[in-house]
Amino acid sequence: MFDVMTWAKICPFPLSSPLLATAEESAASSETSTFILAAVLLSLVVIYVASKVGGELCARINLPPVLGELVGGVVVGVSALQLLVFPDSGAQAQDSLVIQFLQLTSNLTPETAEPVFETQSEVISVLSEIGVIILLFEIGLESDLQELIRVGPQAVIVAVVGVVAPFVAGTAGLVYIFGLPAVPAIFAGAALTATSIGITAKVLAELGQLSSKEGQIIIGAAVLDDVLGIVVLAVVASLVKTGEIQITNIVYLIISAGAFLVGAILLGRLLKPFYVGLVNEMQTRGQLILTALVFAFVLAYIATAIQLEGILGAFAAGLILAETEKRKELEELVVPVSDVFVPIFFVEVGARTDLGVLNPADPSNREGLIIATFLILVAIVGKIITGFAIWGKGELRKLAIGVGMIPRGEVGLVFAGVGAESGALSSATEAAIIMMVITTTFLAPPLLRVVLREPTPASEES
Amino acid sequence: MFDVMTWAKICPFPLSSPLLATAEESAASSETSTFILAAVLLSLVVIYVASKVGGELCARINLPPVLGELVGGVVVGVSALQLLVFPDSGAQAQDSLVIQFLQLTSNLTPETAEPVFETQSEVISVLSEIGVIILLFEIGLESDLQELIRVGPQAVIVAVVGVVAPFVAGTAGLVYIFGLPAVPAIFAGAALTATSIGITAKVLAELGQLSSKEGQIIIGAAVLDDVLGIVVLAVVASLVKTGEIQITNIVYLIISAGAFLVGAILLGRLLKPFYVGLVNEMQTRGQLILTALVFAFVLAYIATAIQLEGILGAFAAGLILAETEKRKELEELVVPVSDVFVPIFFVEVGARTDLGVLNPADPSNREGLIIATFLILVAIVGKIITGFAIWGKGELRKLAIGVGMIPRGEVGLVFAGVGAESGALSSATEAAIIMMVITTTFLAPPLLRVVLREPTPASEES
Repeated sequence: MFDVMTWAKICPFPLSSPLLATAEESAASSETSTFILAAVLLSLVVIYVASKVGGELCARINLPPVLGELVGGVVVGVSALQLLVFPDSGAQAQDSLVIQFLQLTSNLTPETAEPVFETQSEVISVLSEIGVIILLFEIGLESDLQELIRVGPQAVIVAVVGVVAPFVAGTAGLVYIFGLPAVPAIFAGAALTATSIGITAKVLAELGQLSSKEGQIIIGAAVLDDVLGIVVLAVVASLVKTGEIQITNIVYLIISAGAFLVGAILLGRLLKPFYVGLVNEMQTRGQLILTALVFAFVLAYIATAIQLEGILGAFAAGLILAETEKRKELEELVVPVSDVFVPIFFVEVGARTDLGVLNPADPSNREGLIIATFLILVAIVGKIITGFAIWGKGELRKLAIGVGMIPRGEVGLVFAGVGAESGALSSATEAAIIMMVITTTFLAPPLLRVVLREPTPASEES
Repeated sequence: MFDVMTWAKICPFPLSSPLLATAEESAASSETSTFILAAVLLSLVVIYVASKVGGELCARINLPPVLGELVGGVVVGVSALQLLVFPDSGAQAQDSLVIQFLQLTSNLTPETAEPVFETQSEVISVLSEIGVIILLFEIGLESDLQELIRVGPQAVIVAVVGVVAPFVAGTAGLVYIFGLPAVPAIFAGAALTATSIGITAKVLAELGQLSSKEGQIIIGAAVLDDVLGIVVLAVVASLVKTGEIQITNIVYLIISAGAFLVGAILLGRLLKPFYVGLVNEMQTRGQLILTALVFAFVLAYIATAIQLEGILGAFAAGLILAETEKRKELEELVVPVSDVFVPIFFVEVGARTDLGVLNPADPSNREGLIIATFLILVAIVGKIITGFAIWGKGELRKLAIGVGMIPRGEVGLVFAGVGAESGALSSATEAAIIMMVITTTFLAPPLLRVVLREPTPASEES
């Protein structure tokens, strides 16, 4: 509760001091908390409507819905409608249309509007961070360690080449061609690495190619890619936090990321029978989803405490629980929870994106546009070569494998969001990354259709 | 994001002014947001563990799990472990064990601890308020207007007598015997009204009496009771907000509560085909739960805007969607979401309860204990008479009907929470209400077993 009393207690500014400890103060406190709740509810309505309108429009034109959520966020955010704006990008209460609407429809005063706006923005930001944590938990739950091992060496080669090539080419290009400092260059290079498993799987399914040999290699490599991408993200984000690049630092982070993942999975295997037994013993509602979330949040906290990212812990928790007999049941329970939390993240990423920096009419923006062009080029070429990295097997459609790895999605956006939030990325670079995600995601479906050279019915099955 | 920059902007205190707009500031901002997320995650872990341990223990000894969540909250809250404390009850960052744990396990400094604690408490409070909204949405979804009409006049008499008798006797007694002011007396009287449909239904099921005539009347009356209780809550909460009791005020509120519910349901019926059509047309994940939540949040906002409580809007949204063909599907989707949000509310209510005020060793506490004794007496007698209010039908076990109406639960706790939050209830009265809820819930199962005079196997079926 960010009420007048605590406000007065922590901030020695004569905001409400004459009212302290009077009945009016108590009433004002209750009023403020009502306004905060109303502002959060309205923001959630804006977020959900934006995510669904954007998602549905994209689904109609055969594009991944996640792209629509992002574009929906751009539409309601700082670049367009200003329904969802954030104080840390310099916005005031009066810049937010939600707060203006509250002032119109209730007795919210301009003085109260500012703390209400601050608190509402903080709540939405935390909900969005919980959103990424739940998303990565779900991705972990849908990943399969056994399957990763089974798809074998080809998937490993595709994944490793597809991570290393764009990362190295992207980072080196940004540093040597564009003269960017090392940290943002590494961040942007890292954002080029992870193929979106969700988007790729959906595109392959739409083309009826999910069970082809190429399809299996792509899915296997994309799953591996996701893991690699998350390790890269954890490493890069920690680098940004400590502020410098040291080999010992990198080695420490790689070791701790690896040790954390391996340790969590080994410990998880030990605790698994205990976990399943505990859940089976429990008789009250919500026992499965709540124990799973407690597990995910604890691992997320441990990952944070050892300087990694919370999402890595959530992903590890998902991977571990995916190996229990509760996996299917848990997946079904996580879906609605994830549906409620995850759009907050994607819409917020879109809403925070100031597309104004990409307006070519402004000369100072040209740098961002040129970076975006470069990133898109590296993103596409860096993945297309992965198919040709596999040793000669004549009948494999190698171009198709590479093209199938092109779409970037969730993890790329996570990089953009985490990078911008940590202050590592300039808004031009952040917008360039989002442009890259949008472009690769837009391009992959039609390109895949061409290289797989099949009379595709493009039947919808969602 | 409650970061250093916005902090410095809104609070002209030399907290971080020398750092403004430097690289260190940006890094500090990212640090703060990481700490806030970590504090929220740890608080959620505490809440979930408390709710499950309490709920499971209660389930073992044949008591309703919701009671255990409340008691779990008391254990982790201000009365005992101090894991979950709130600044608006005077707590500082150093009083919170979660914050102390964060300081131990990470580099959180005492200066940063205070804003992190404030923001974490605000986020948990808002999540808890969203929890009640989702709970009331779910209760609405499980209610059935048609069934209410079918169980007929007997259920209506039981419900009306069971609301009016404890309310009038409780309020009058508190004003005339105990000399309480009108507003808290009305609030406490109103908290006596609503039978817990969840608890009652579970107890009846455990006794194998759900389909008996008495069982059907109890369930019908409890459903009606829930609606009446919510209207009473909305009326009382609005009274507290406007601060005085005027007949025109009461009439306005009753009319607006009634008009809102009736208007929402009529409008809902008009929009229902459109809603079902829209959901059926949608192709992306989460379309049903998100459109339902948007509907619930919009109605909750409208209810807030016309000075009613948000939960009334959420309940109306549930009642409306319960009449669509999507009801069953939606109920299944709401369950995990509700499992994630609702415990936050019950544990928070328990955590905010300072049981210290009920320590009989302190002479100043005796008032609270006497109030609790009085409330418990009125709560039991006021419901037992309802069975005898039904005109003579020899074979009906009238005592059993009255006893079946005794358990208070969710709605009573909502009264305690909303009342304490709005500042209307003294902590002694709030604790007395919670004592009443705990006692009636504890007493009802053994009492029901006695009055139904059956050799009950008391078999568990959850």
